[in-house]
Amino acid sequence: MDAKESVPAEPFDFTELLRPGLPPAATRWTGFPKYNFVGGHNDTDSVPVDGLVAAATAVLKREGSSLSTYGMTSGPLGYRPLREFIARKLAQEAGIACSIEEILITSGSLQGLDLVNQVLLAPGDTVIVEHMTYGGAITRLQRLGANIVGVAVDHDGLSDTALKSTLDLLRSRAIRPKYIYTIPTVQNPTATVMSEARRRKILALSSEYGVPLFEDECYADLVWEGKRPRAFRALTEDDRVIHIGSFSKSIAPALRIGYLVTGWPLMSRILAIKNDGGSGAIEQMILAEYCQGHFDDHVQVLRKTLRRKLDVLVEALRSRFGTAAEFEYPAGGIFLWVNLPDGVDTTRLAQVALQSGVAINPGAEWMTDSVAGRKRLRLCFAHPSEQVIREGIEKLAQVCQREFPAAATGNKAHR
Amino acid sequence: MDAKESVPAEPFDFTELLRPGLPPAATRWTGFPKYNFVGGHNDTDSVPVDGLVAAATAVLKREGSSLSTYGMTSGPLGYRPLREFIARKLAQEAGIACSIEEILITSGSLQGLDLVNQVLLAPGDTVIVEHMTYGGAITRLQRLGANIVGVAVDHDGLSDTALKSTLDLLRSRAIRPKYIYTIPTVQNPTATVMSEARRRKILALSSEYGVPLFEDECYADLVWEGKRPRAFRALTEDDRVIHIGSFSKSIAPALRIGYLVTGWPLMSRILAIKNDGGSGAIEQMILAEYCQGHFDDHVQVLRKTLRRKLDVLVEALRSRFGTAAEFEYPAGGIFLWVNLPDGVDTTRLAQVALQSGVAINPGAEWMTDSVAGRKRLRLCFAHPSEQVIREGIEKLAQVCQREFPAAATGNKAHR
Repeated sequence: MDAKESVPAEPFDFTELLRPGLPPAATRWTGFPKYNFVGGHNDTDSVPVDGLVAAATAVLKREGSSLSTYGMTSGPLGYRPLREFIARKLAQEAGIACSIEEILITSGSLQGLDLVNQVLLAPGDTVIVEHMTYGGAITRLQRLGANIVGVAVDHDGLSDTALKSTLDLLRSRAIRPKYIYTIPTVQNPTATVMSEARRRKILALSSEYGVPLFEDECYADLVWEGKRPRAFRALTEDDRVIHIGSFSKSIAPALRIGYLVTGWPLMSRILAIKNDGGSGAIEQMILAEYCQGHFDDHVQVLRKTLRRKLDVLVEALRSRFGTAAEFEYPAGGIFLWVNLPDGVDTTRLAQVALQSGVAINPGAEWMTDSVAGRKRLRLCFAHPSEQVIREGIEKLAQVCQREFPAAATGNKAHR
Repeated sequence: MDAKESVPAEPFDFTELLRPGLPPAATRWTGFPKYNFVGGHNDTDSVPVDGLVAAATAVLKREGSSLSTYGMTSGPLGYRPLREFIARKLAQEAGIACSIEEILITSGSLQGLDLVNQVLLAPGDTVIVEHMTYGGAITRLQRLGANIVGVAVDHDGLSDTALKSTLDLLRSRAIRPKYIYTIPTVQNPTATVMSEARRRKILALSSEYGVPLFEDECYADLVWEGKRPRAFRALTEDDRVIHIGSFSKSIAPALRIGYLVTGWPLMSRILAIKNDGGSGAIEQMILAEYCQGHFDDHVQVLRKTLRRKLDVLVEALRSRFGTAAEFEYPAGGIFLWVNLPDGVDTTRLAQVALQSGVAINPGAEWMTDSVAGRKRLRLCFAHPSEQVIREGIEKLAQVCQREFPAAATGNKAHR
């Protein structure tokens, strides 16, 4: 055998050509862990497969040929019947009065985050976020070189007193933040629902300090009681609130459809940079067709399923961690925010637990102050079955006791 | 009536908060023009509606519940059966031997452009493009602050001699371009197909100067003869060629599915910044299901339809513009690149024609030297019906004669 023949060509070296400041390279995908408590995955049996099949058949037969044009004759804001459904839904459930010209269909609410950031943020700009917040929002802001200022949350969500202090401090330094980002309904990760009274206080501060609000309501359909408070955007008429939402949590995460609500002054700027040829048309069509007759009933059943899974998780945690695992019972959603005893480092816990097939979101990634997030973790309960939840928490407890025996024992983990 | 009550709230003013350097605000959508010769729209009757319905039904019934997880158990590269189809297709038709780990499903090939730019380009970086090229690629590069260097194309696509001169010049200034962007098969806008001999010359230059190639093969399925040359990526084993492709032109533009082929060193960087929760899963599933049994037959029929429309357009241009409209007969695709007499300004022509319902792409937007593009225009013939093509060219000729009588008459437009 000739050695020359068996040697493959040298791979071209892109290293020197990479843009500086990129995040670390991704690792190869090795499949989902067996006990999967991370990410926004949802209950597998709850995907409305039959309804989606019926919707796909009906809408594609009727309008499939419109796929021949970008925008399907509905234009760059997205499929018109879907925008009409969203406008009705927002009016009925969130109290928002908006026209379909103020609604942009996005590829998941994540694209909404990106678009707003792209039109508002230059490197060095300041944004205010809840100090515990969606990890993907923090990552995005870091990548854009934003100055991220975290403000405390309490049982009622973003604290208005802490927000006022921060706004004062920034004003004293002549800094006008670009926006206040908040997840008011089923806050991520604390799963609280902000009262309307608190919303009004926050809105008054937004007005006083001239800082727009950016509300992310992607979990708002999943409030256990089925009744969400009026959205921030419903409480003002002056267009200062940018609103985003999603169908990822209510229908299916892999279906990448979200929406953004804003007035034309900002919408016209966003449309000018949304140069993606439109968000996926078939998904928009199927979703619109399905939701018109089925959304409310579907979500009502989904909420019950999720709450049942939450109760299994809570029971498993109480049984295996005892008082060592502190948490507030969520008002809705798909995750539980847990506080472990001093001495536990959930970033390390997450690494070790993964070797036993248990995946968790370490708190450091969900807080602007990563040190403060050390003892915390986020557990998503929507995807694993009830049996997998029980087994997974059992395994997590074992790993935790092994890795952090002092902390675990000192807090009566084994009562 | 109280004046105070009837005045709506002042809209919040975002002006001062906008990121500097944004493109101009979008104008409101007013529907498609009647004679629509712009963009990548396709033939409406050719959308395989029945096939897509059957595919949707089969795949959703079988695997719809996997929509409950981001990535549908296939991971961040995209739906595995679709990657398998693409790998087979690229092997058979483009000569590319790649594993499904080297294929990333993107939201249209536009996302492929964006991802490659995001990992490679910082403001001020130099890229080489064909001097006549896709307008959307130019816009993207301008927005990123790239130094765009255009290189001449001839009947065989990107000129290797011109490329060598440019590479020498840049080297003399100690500039290493980040990539050479080329549309080798059905070049946009010239619609030529680069020979394999030319591809090898370009590849040798890429190797000699250490500059990777970025090949955009989004039109490669639409070569009239049905036989495309081997892709750049098939002609080297050293991973220097980033390859992107699309189903927008072969199945439907509103379906946002494209793909990117590269080795793991760059793929791992791209995956690290593709934080969109995956590209639309339902579209990936339906497409994979449909393509496995139907892609080749569908495209064969589509090519004939498109060529028939092209011939209608060519006949209409000859009849109405005579020798005033110069063009080469395309080797495939959906557009014709036309050169009009000196004195014609197609940017103005486009504005005036639009008032008569005729939309065209002015040449200035499709060339790196916008002045050189003044007399040129791109006509997409895939979407309008044969009758609409005839009427539209009639109207365009009337506008052209009215606006530029000297130029039109001087070139025997009315023989």
